[in-house]
Formats: sequence, structure tokens, C-alpha cells
Amino acid sequence: MSRHTPLLQQLIDALRILPGVGPKSAQRMAFSLLERNREGGAHLGAALNAAMAKIGHCQQCRTFCESDLCHICADPSRAQDGIICVVGSAADQMAIEQTGQFKGRYFVLQGYLSPLDGIGPQDLGLDILSNTLAKHNVTELILATNPTVEGDATAFYIAELCNKQQVKVSRIAQGIPVGGELEFVDGTTLSHAFSGRKAF
Amino acid sequence: MSRHTPLLQQLIDALRILPGVGPKSAQRMAFSLLERNREGGAHLGAALNAAMAKIGHCQQCRTFCESDLCHICADPSRAQDGIICVVGSAADQMAIEQTGQFKGRYFVLQGYLSPLDGIGPQDLGLDILSNTLAKHNVTELILATNPTVEGDATAFYIAELCNKQQVKVSRIAQGIPVGGELEFVDGTTLSHAFSGRKAF
Repeated sequence: MSRHTPLLQQLIDALRILPGVGPKSAQRMAFSLLERNREGGAHLGAALNAAMAKIGHCQQCRTFCESDLCHICADPSRAQDGIICVVGSAADQMAIEQTGQFKGRYFVLQGYLSPLDGIGPQDLGLDILSNTLAKHNVTELILATNPTVEGDATAFYIAELCNKQQVKVSRIAQGIPVGGELEFVDGTTLSHAFSGRKAF
Repeated sequence: MSRHTPLLQQLIDALRILPGVGPKSAQRMAFSLLERNREGGAHLGAALNAAMAKIGHCQQCRTFCESDLCHICADPSRAQDGIICVVGSAADQMAIEQTGQFKGRYFVLQGYLSPLDGIGPQDLGLDILSNTLAKHNVTELILATNPTVEGDATAFYIAELCNKQQVKVSRIAQGIPVGGELEFVDGTTLSHAFSGRKAF
């Protein structure tokens, strides 16, 4: 006999798809909602259903969006300098937006090239990016992909694309993070920091 | 302008009602579902709606249940020895069930007495418990409430109820936890452990 009633077990199993939620947390979440916040639980259910069904992708930059164009792509002032920043996910885009430093447009890959998982250039919308490079007045493409194997491979692929279409391509600097201690920075980062040194 | 589109912001806000989920985790959960598991997200939405609407309380022990009686109350073998264990929440009941040691029935308070928050005996179903004591053949009531101020106050109140109805009442032992180190056990627990010592 299952320890929980069917609906409760279904809820606990369903909660486990959330990142970082194991069986114990899922049970705690389910009990917390049932005991103290049924209204909030129903509201969360409705918000999930609405979001999963209605949030799509911006036709130009592929970020999450409920209309055809996201508010950045729809803003002509963001296209003025013709710079496009390529990021791996909407969360990365959000992190860059929060710095308030970057005033151009984005292209959100929503993943990285990973042939073993069957994720190719089409899945990342690189055909859309290629079209953008050809049709719009793009002066520079900044690569802000993750400094991982997949992120690097994807960056090389996109750099290749830019070279073919004669668009200037750059990559955000790799080096020691602000506030970090040299002693605890790994060797590869440290060598990147040396080779990327700037006049002081 | 809000940083997220309305539905996305609604989803992130709604996720924050889950215990232990702050703004960063909520954003990570929302993006993870949208990027990789929309089907799972919709399934979670449906599971939440079904659970919030359809999970009620067992009429006899107040645990979460989809029918009138939970599977423990519906099982006559659990009533044989006439012992009822009083716990604060369904999660506590689950923890005791997992030990496999207790073969009697439960009564789940779903909270503790807390006059400041307006939680009185009625809210904990103590009238139902009182009825059970009067009508059913209860030989012993075991108090397994949390060793906190609220848990203690509730335990005293229920013990009073049992004394009035001449039902034997006991409380689970307080002492040092198995695997713990004496050095790090607090003073109150240690004095409970001394006063509750048993012949070896």
C-alpha cells in the first residue's frame, strides 16, 4: 500500500521536477500548502498552467515572451549601436540586464550545442541568428556563453558564422572575479587572467 | 517596466509561496520548467489544482485524506490495542509510521494551540478527540507533540482532557538523540535525559 493517498503522492511526485527539490522537500512543500495555504497552492497551479501554455519565444531573440517581440527587441533605441549579445539562457540575459551596462540587443540560445544529446544548430535557432546578421545592421556580436566545454564549442561555432558574414565578433573577458582571492582561483582562470592583462 | 513578462512574473511570485523558495530559486524553477519541462510544469499545475480541491481530512483522525476515513482509521487491526498517538502534523505521523514500531491509531492536530494566532482547541479538532475518548475503547493516549512551547502547552491541554475522561496518558521520551554527542547536546535535553534515566 502506498504511504500517501493517490492525489497527495501525485502532487509530491510532480513537485520533484522542480530543480533542487528532493523527496523530503517535496513532501514538506505539499504538506505546507495543504495545511496553511490552499489558496496559494491553487493560485500556483493556475499560474503554472497559464505560463506553460502561453509563454512562447521572441521571434527575433528567442527569449521567453508572451507576444511576438520581447520588450527589448521592440525598443528601437536598443538597436541603435547594432550590437548583439549572445547568451545561453534567459537567466543569463537577466543577469546582464541587471548590470545596466549593456544597451544593445540579445540573442538567447536557450541551450548549448551538444551533439550527444541531439542538440544541433537548428535547435539553438542559429538559422534565425544567421538571418539577423545578414539582414539587420549588426556591427558587433558579443559572445557571453558559459565558460564550459559546451559554451566554448557553441561560441566557436557562432564565431565561425560571424566570420563568414564578416561581422566583428568578441567575447566577454575571462579572468579573476571581483572580490575573489588569487589563492583560491583555479589555474586555467589565472592563465586567462594573465594572457588577457590590460595596461594599468 | 517590470523585468519579466506578466505571466512569467506571476509564476515566479506564485512559486515563492513554497517553503524555502526565495526570489532566485523561484526564477530558476520557472526558467527550468519553461526551458526543459513544459509538460512536467503543466502536470504539476494539474496535480496542484486537484490536490488543493480534493484532499480533505479524515473524519476520525484529521490526517490528509481523499475519502471519509484514512487507510489507518479504516483498518480494524490498528484499533485492537486501543492506543491513540497524538501528533502535530501529517509529516510527524509519516515519520512515526516509517519506524514501523507503532501499531495503533493516530490523531493529527494539524497545528498547535496558539492563542495569539487565534488557534484554539476547536481549530485542532480537540472536540473530535474528546468524542473519540468518550465513545471508543481508548486504553492509552500517547502524546508525540513537538518539544516546543506550543507543543508542550498543547500536550498539557490534552493530558487534562484525558484525566477528565480517565484515559491513561503518556508522552514519548525526551533525551539524547541516537548518534548524537553529549558535548553538543543542550542543557535542557541533558537534564531531561537524566531525569528520564532507565535501569540498564
